[in-house]
Amino acid sequence: MAVKENIRPGGRSARVQASVHAAVRELLAEMSRAEITVPLIAMRAGVTPSTIYRRWGDLQQLLADVAVERLRPDMEPIDTGSGAGDLEVWAEQYAEEMSSGPGREYVRDVLAAQTGDNATKCCNFTRQQIEAIAVRAKERGEFFPDIDAVMDSVVAPIMYRILFGDVPTSARVRELVGHVFGQRKAP
Amino acid sequence: MAVKENIRPGGRSARVQASVHAAVRELLAEMSRAEITVPLIAMRAGVTPSTIYRRWGDLQQLLADVAVERLRPDMEPIDTGSGAGDLEVWAEQYAEEMSSGPGREYVRDVLAAQTGDNATKCCNFTRQQIEAIAVRAKERGEFFPDIDAVMDSVVAPIMYRILFGDVPTSARVRELVGHVFGQRKAP
Repeated sequence: MAVKENIRPGGRSARVQASVHAAVRELLAEMSRAEITVPLIAMRAGVTPSTIYRRWGDLQQLLADVAVERLRPDMEPIDTGSGAGDLEVWAEQYAEEMSSGPGREYVRDVLAAQTGDNATKCCNFTRQQIEAIAVRAKERGEFFPDIDAVMDSVVAPIMYRILFGDVPTSARVRELVGHVFGQRKAP
Repeated sequence: MAVKENIRPGGRSARVQASVHAAVRELLAEMSRAEITVPLIAMRAGVTPSTIYRRWGDLQQLLADVAVERLRPDMEPIDTGSGAGDLEVWAEQYAEEMSSGPGREYVRDVLAAQTGDNATKCCNFTRQQIEAIAVRAKERGEFFPDIDAVMDSVVAPIMYRILFGDVPTSARVRELVGHVFGQRKAP
């Protein structure tokens, strides 16, 4: 069950969401994920378990919803003066955050949910950050690769390596970025 | 807890593993994943729950272990007469299998486990398939890109798109393969 977007701020629905999210974050800090249950969250949030089931469907969906909020970027990408520099700094930071303990937990929660809504949201957050870098580059009159090429050639290999094996080194991240800029003349 | 590799075939340990794996596969076919418990698997497999906990640690780790066996390739990559053709056919099949209902479930189970052992195993299966294609290409005297470049430029974007959003089209998969062959002269 997808959570309604654009909940009226300050409305009852928004208050329930805020208090349930806060309860999950508190419990995650206090105990292991395997010990957390819907009744426990409901008690802490001051709502009934059925409110949670009605709104989120199941525990995994709620955990995914909380995780995606944690993965929402809280700043504009750093401005280094060039698109290539911005992408390099952003990609290194992305690799670092996603491979950290909490980063891995959030990504795992997002991917464990049955519906892909939250995973798509995560992907869109990433895309928006790269678009912001691309817009700045174009304002400076610089070349910047297609967003899809950046997603496929920089973001995807970083995430694949984090999920399926080794964390990419900074050097490898810089190589990936250099590469997508070098694709300029490729067909 | 990682499962011991190289279990002596036919030994007690191998028989326990085979019967527990079979029990999980049967139960997965009969009921939803959320209903499956360790005691239920133990009863079906004719072992005690503590045998399962001792060997696999927890349910998620066991599910990951079963899933990774399902993801083990059961054939050599198809020989089309050229490395580029082989990789194209293999990549299309990979995208199709991993984005199918069962494929997604297996990948989800593998990634949901706390330890990354099974995810690394999956990645190694994929790498071995590509290495087999590369060896054939070299025997024919053809150029074939680095295995790492294929992992980053073909495998990673296919998996990223399946996990975080849309399934890549066949056309896009062919483009990715064409591209990694085009990188030939890149630095």
